[in-house]
Amino acid sequence: MKNVNKKTISKAEFARILRKIVGKEAVLTEDEVLRPFECDGLTAYRQLPLMVVLPAVIEEVQAVVKACAKYSVPIVTRGAGTGLSGGALPLENGILLSLTRMNHILEIDADARTARVQPGVRNLAISQAVQHLGLYYAPDPSSQIACSIGGNVAENAGGVHCLKYGLTGHNILQLKVVTVDGDLITIGSRALDSPGYDLLALLTGSEGMLGVIVEIIVKLLPIPPCAQVVMAAFDDVERAGEAVAAVIGAGILPAGLEMMDRYAIQAAEDFVHAGYPVDAAAILLCELDGTVEEVEDQIHKVDEIFKQQNSTRTWIARDDVTRQRFWSGRKAAFPAVGRISPDYYCIDGTIPRRELGKVLTRINELSEQYGLRVANVFHAGDGNLHPLILYDANVAGELELTEEMGNRILELCVEVGGTVTGEHGVGVEKLSPMCSQFENSELEQFHAVKAAWDVDSLLNPGKAVPTLARCAEFNAMHVHRGNLPFPNIERF
Amino acid sequence: MKNVNKKTISKAEFARILRKIVGKEAVLTEDEVLRPFECDGLTAYRQLPLMVVLPAVIEEVQAVVKACAKYSVPIVTRGAGTGLSGGALPLENGILLSLTRMNHILEIDADARTARVQPGVRNLAISQAVQHLGLYYAPDPSSQIACSIGGNVAENAGGVHCLKYGLTGHNILQLKVVTVDGDLITIGSRALDSPGYDLLALLTGSEGMLGVIVEIIVKLLPIPPCAQVVMAAFDDVERAGEAVAAVIGAGILPAGLEMMDRYAIQAAEDFVHAGYPVDAAAILLCELDGTVEEVEDQIHKVDEIFKQQNSTRTWIARDDVTRQRFWSGRKAAFPAVGRISPDYYCIDGTIPRRELGKVLTRINELSEQYGLRVANVFHAGDGNLHPLILYDANVAGELELTEEMGNRILELCVEVGGTVTGEHGVGVEKLSPMCSQFENSELEQFHAVKAAWDVDSLLNPGKAVPTLARCAEFNAMHVHRGNLPFPNIERF
Repeated sequence: MKNVNKKTISKAEFARILRKIVGKEAVLTEDEVLRPFECDGLTAYRQLPLMVVLPAVIEEVQAVVKACAKYSVPIVTRGAGTGLSGGALPLENGILLSLTRMNHILEIDADARTARVQPGVRNLAISQAVQHLGLYYAPDPSSQIACSIGGNVAENAGGVHCLKYGLTGHNILQLKVVTVDGDLITIGSRALDSPGYDLLALLTGSEGMLGVIVEIIVKLLPIPPCAQVVMAAFDDVERAGEAVAAVIGAGILPAGLEMMDRYAIQAAEDFVHAGYPVDAAAILLCELDGTVEEVEDQIHKVDEIFKQQNSTRTWIARDDVTRQRFWSGRKAAFPAVGRISPDYYCIDGTIPRRELGKVLTRINELSEQYGLRVANVFHAGDGNLHPLILYDANVAGELELTEEMGNRILELCVEVGGTVTGEHGVGVEKLSPMCSQFENSELEQFHAVKAAWDVDSLLNPGKAVPTLARCAEFNAMHVHRGNLPFPNIERF
Repeated sequence: MKNVNKKTISKAEFARILRKIVGKEAVLTEDEVLRPFECDGLTAYRQLPLMVVLPAVIEEVQAVVKACAKYSVPIVTRGAGTGLSGGALPLENGILLSLTRMNHILEIDADARTARVQPGVRNLAISQAVQHLGLYYAPDPSSQIACSIGGNVAENAGGVHCLKYGLTGHNILQLKVVTVDGDLITIGSRALDSPGYDLLALLTGSEGMLGVIVEIIVKLLPIPPCAQVVMAAFDDVERAGEAVAAVIGAGILPAGLEMMDRYAIQAAEDFVHAGYPVDAAAILLCELDGTVEEVEDQIHKVDEIFKQQNSTRTWIARDDVTRQRFWSGRKAAFPAVGRISPDYYCIDGTIPRRELGKVLTRINELSEQYGLRVANVFHAGDGNLHPLILYDANVAGELELTEEMGNRILELCVEVGGTVTGEHGVGVEKLSPMCSQFENSELEQFHAVKAAWDVDSLLNPGKAVPTLARCAEFNAMHVHRGNLPFPNIERF
């Protein structure tokens, strides 16, 4: 408890205070009930929290945050816990603020095409609730059946359709946020823009470090009347990368443009029989949506471009059954890869689109150098790579080697002008790569923003932005020994 | 000079220091050469700066900012000076940092569809430089022939095409920024997203208060192969507002959707003979762009919707000459209104689209109540209103009445869930309306962000975010006397 001027308090006494706010059942303190909360989707890092608190309404969140501030107890906010970078990893001396009970859709306005929702509402539940109005919520992370909209905002989540429809930040209008003082503030507006600094964008993707998001107004879009998919096979990964650039370069904006390479194709085909060409070095899946006329026009253009770019074969899914089958392999790619390797480590980097071919070639070289297989499954249109490094955690040293190779891939992303995360966030996983991405003067600016919202660093401390000391150490180790240090947190 | 610990210095001595950095000719100190810099597009407010400094390269900007920080001299950064809210209004004791000499396009990357430009490059010059590649830069403020891209970023400028293509913030990838310490930092990236807090969005629209923007990477878009316009006349403003909602509600995303009402139509028609129906209460101009098939399909749908919404007549501009003629009236609307009234005051508020009809009716009521004519010319699709209040500055008290009515309109925008500025920024003009928009706890958060970047408030101090004291006074006056105070700056 860092601020010595504030009162310290026993765990039991603090639990009693919180139970007065949220009710007896909504504060969990025993190890066995805390266990499900010990990690998020990045299961390599685990830590039991001091306790879990489950508020039901905004006023309870405010009172809990005030109590934590009073006794300098850190707060880690958690949505559905599907995050992949350890953003919701608990702290031993902090509460885990779970917002799963705040899962109501409060208002649907079909005319304005907006929905006002609580943070615990599942991503897909929003689209399901407005489907009868011909509307949907566009950003679609792979975890959309489980992940919560509050977590989506905190991580600025992406998905297949973000190429055309933007990331989470492009699809929200307003947030209600509880500050570390327990104040409730409204940022953004129901209108196009909001005056003053763009705090809405600042909070989006801030990984729970600036405030607790307690209500969200999302934008809804009309369901496109028509969607079709072209699949193209290539006998060379670099060529597939160039075809991606050619599609975008032709002024076409697909609803999704995804790439899978050999291991991923074979694993997915083996698993769900999507009808993929198992002899291809890479496939592209390109979805076009819009009016019937628009899709008809563009699907032919894309097919033509793929042929010009030396695809070995193309297929067009005109009916919805075939389209869904084509997507089934992509959607099942991660679990499919899980079937062909004891473990895999999912990397999330973003590069300028034109560097795709070059970077994929370099990843293959790294794969040979480290003796680790890599399956590539990713949002090619966005330049958002997800190399899956296949390894076996039971082989001594293989996880370390995998992480080192992962960091090499991320450095490569930075080198070509990209970033160390596309859509999974920094969390605890990417703290060291952040040192490759940013200069000290830039990191100082991040810390200054953090202090502007949370001077005592009670909100998700230690995540997302590395300390300058860490980066000094990281860069020193990196320069002198040529390999990368690992986050300073117990690993399982 | 607020920080008493820092050295004070005479004007002459400070000018000598700055001349060593930027050269003799690039520091202006005499009243007659300072005069052109005394105001921006909001000419009601004027102030001569201490001096004008015109750096040519980033290193000079850094050195100038460091010198200012050393001697606690405030800095107001200025682009082309076309801003409409007084964001670049000089300070008597501060330098005006003019970036007009930094006007080079540094790099065009047709494959990545980006351009790297200096802040002083004119908005339209970017599109002109990439036209031969079939590309353009989408955001198009009315002042695009004159305004600079740096100023566009500082104000998060909009324009007719922002309905479909987004505001400035949606069309930039990376900024180089000089902080108040003189550090050069890079924020954003060439890739889709950047890790850490979204400082790119935070800086966009920050009105020169967080840093000096010295380089910008903008996104370029392919020029749409086809564009057509439907014009529709209505005999009732409210009905035209409902037609806007109906177009958007049908899932159509026009490239532009603009409304003009009676005074604006008549003034524009008188001025440029655009072919407008002068007996209409309102017209809508709806541009569709895309492939030939897409435009063909949508232009009919929009025409159909306008007819269903009781438009009295519609016209389709199929050829480019007619299309340009239809737009010529909209583009000349402001100067056209200037011909029918000695003065006009342009309001800039944004409302949820579905409130259009209601708000336009209320504006008409206010117009009668205040005895001031109003011409409405605005981005209807965005809900971004530009009521032009017609007045005569030579009639005693009429400017004050105009400003009061303007504030009433902005309060109305807030009341229906909108904001007090759409695309013109807050500057000095909207400081009091910001008090209607935000609670103290929200304003405190703005001030905290400002302090995180510029603790001594040297960068454009006093703009964009009102002090809590000002809002206390504003709200007190507002509640007790029912009318609004005016900004505390000398008015001409």
